[in-house]
Amino acid sequence: MKPSIGIIPGDPSGVGPELVARLLADEIVAEADVLLIGDPHVFRLGQEQAGIRHAHTEVDAASGDWRAADRFALHPLETIPAGEVVLAESTEASGRSTLRTLDTALDFAAAGVIDAVVFAPFNKASMHLAGIGHADELHYMAERLGVETYVSELNTLDGMWTSRVTSHIALSEVADAISGGRIKRAANLIDGTLRRAGHANPRIAVAGINPHAGDGGNFGTEEIDIIEPAVRELAGTGMNVSGPWPSDTVFLKAVRKEIDAVVTMYHDQGQIALKLLGFDRGVTVQGGLPIPVATPAHGTAFDIVGRCRADVGATRAAFETALRMVGHWERE
Amino acid sequence: MKPSIGIIPGDPSGVGPELVARLLADEIVAEADVLLIGDPHVFRLGQEQAGIRHAHTEVDAASGDWRAADRFALHPLETIPAGEVVLAESTEASGRSTLRTLDTALDFAAAGVIDAVVFAPFNKASMHLAGIGHADELHYMAERLGVETYVSELNTLDGMWTSRVTSHIALSEVADAISGGRIKRAANLIDGTLRRAGHANPRIAVAGINPHAGDGGNFGTEEIDIIEPAVRELAGTGMNVSGPWPSDTVFLKAVRKEIDAVVTMYHDQGQIALKLLGFDRGVTVQGGLPIPVATPAHGTAFDIVGRCRADVGATRAAFETALRMVGHWERE
Repeated sequence: MKPSIGIIPGDPSGVGPELVARLLADEIVAEADVLLIGDPHVFRLGQEQAGIRHAHTEVDAASGDWRAADRFALHPLETIPAGEVVLAESTEASGRSTLRTLDTALDFAAAGVIDAVVFAPFNKASMHLAGIGHADELHYMAERLGVETYVSELNTLDGMWTSRVTSHIALSEVADAISGGRIKRAANLIDGTLRRAGHANPRIAVAGINPHAGDGGNFGTEEIDIIEPAVRELAGTGMNVSGPWPSDTVFLKAVRKEIDAVVTMYHDQGQIALKLLGFDRGVTVQGGLPIPVATPAHGTAFDIVGRCRADVGATRAAFETALRMVGHWERE
Repeated sequence: MKPSIGIIPGDPSGVGPELVARLLADEIVAEADVLLIGDPHVFRLGQEQAGIRHAHTEVDAASGDWRAADRFALHPLETIPAGEVVLAESTEASGRSTLRTLDTALDFAAAGVIDAVVFAPFNKASMHLAGIGHADELHYMAERLGVETYVSELNTLDGMWTSRVTSHIALSEVADAISGGRIKRAANLIDGTLRRAGHANPRIAVAGINPHAGDGGNFGTEEIDIIEPAVRELAGTGMNVSGPWPSDTVFLKAVRKEIDAVVTMYHDQGQIALKLLGFDRGVTVQGGLPIPVATPAHGTAFDIVGRCRADVGATRAAFETALRMVGHWERE
């Protein structure tokens, strides 16, 4: 049986519905049984925006075998009236729609109805207007799935993965927030996720925090006191890990395919590199959840909504990543 | 009269002599009168390494018009016996040779014998063995030229320039080291240097320090308390300056040629971007000196010395930058 992947259209005010229409026109979807979850008029809106028509069969995915023979299966929801969709604006209604379709997708995944979830871009402002009650969608998902262990977004682009030891905190707080435990947690998460994405023995590089990775202690001692011991300990568990590497050269190793993943110490260390390398083509994986969940790294792109200009590349890459993760998920 | 540019071979143990030989074979040198300063056997060594022969005329540049009609002018020095040149090793002798040729070049520049200096790569370890007495060559040069005002290395690559508010310090010390005065100093230095490199009204972007440039104060307040006021003050003086910009997108503006320069807050903020963009092709300008001094951004490349593999690209770019700076120097 093929992997089954649930697809939700993301925020209806953004480029998500158009991206889903474009994704369904890509031959890659034939590699999975696809279950569309959401309001039929939102999927139709996306098809109109993309200028593409798809046939679908409405199903009740909760009640039995929904896999459609020759059309896309659509599990219809009513999360937002068509008249309340305001293109290119953050609204409470679109945030509520986003969260309701996400809820259903997660419930289906938890119940084994689908193997993985791919979501088109969410809009953080809309979700906050709708009362998401969490800092971000990952923590919302973790609560709904009953996950109490460590979760963290992972970014991937052209086969290079990154995780973060710290993320949305002031630069002045980064050094104090670095600890052996947090480094090991971030490294273990990315190691496990890469194994589930099909890497038998992922090569993981841990970045330093200081210029020249501290230059032997001349510009900071966190490498000597904290990062090196953590890397040694991880290597002792059999992980294929190295570091700490200077942050201005570690990404060149990834570009040259000498490593598969970089554990970064702070937000911009990884983001400067990923954005320059074309992260709008990249994928965000919700690391630490019991099921594969992937999404394009870019946002709702309000500036181009409805103008037939949305690029499906990152959404296709998210679908491909989810497919690969389903294929390897049982091996863990 | 053409600009006159003094060229020194850098560390004789490294790729510098080979790079000079290759540079002299490039048609760009016809745009200047070139004065080679150093040991004739070192220049010959480079020609042998490159497999290129150049004719030169020995001159005493201190005593009158040295400009050679149809050959390269060479002001001979004796800074190292040929037998003491050890390829691909940091030695006290090679460091001393580096500093002695640099001294002469700076003295000639100060006396108006040459308009600018281009140096092939130095080796920091060799210079320290030779007792440079300063953290780096820039501060050595500043002392020799009697400069007591602010100096700082500037990096340039493919028309994009960067300066740093802080450099070789621990990341934990960066936030405390950021001040309005230091930001203004770094911005003024790069503005003045770009004007001297031919930009009539350089577009300067100041980076933030925190993720998302602080996200309105959610992840740090340095943008609000320190950087924004400094940028406003600079704009009030007529500078074409903007910011603070998130550090993971500001370099994309530079790539798209929307800005000419980025003032970075810390070492890796700029270096991660520059190295990914190919900074080995880049140029370092010694900012704040009374004469243009430029050098390739890469080092002595001991791993490829004498193997006829040195790439002249960055050295050519350094020469071109110096040429442009001479052409605009008087306008300040």
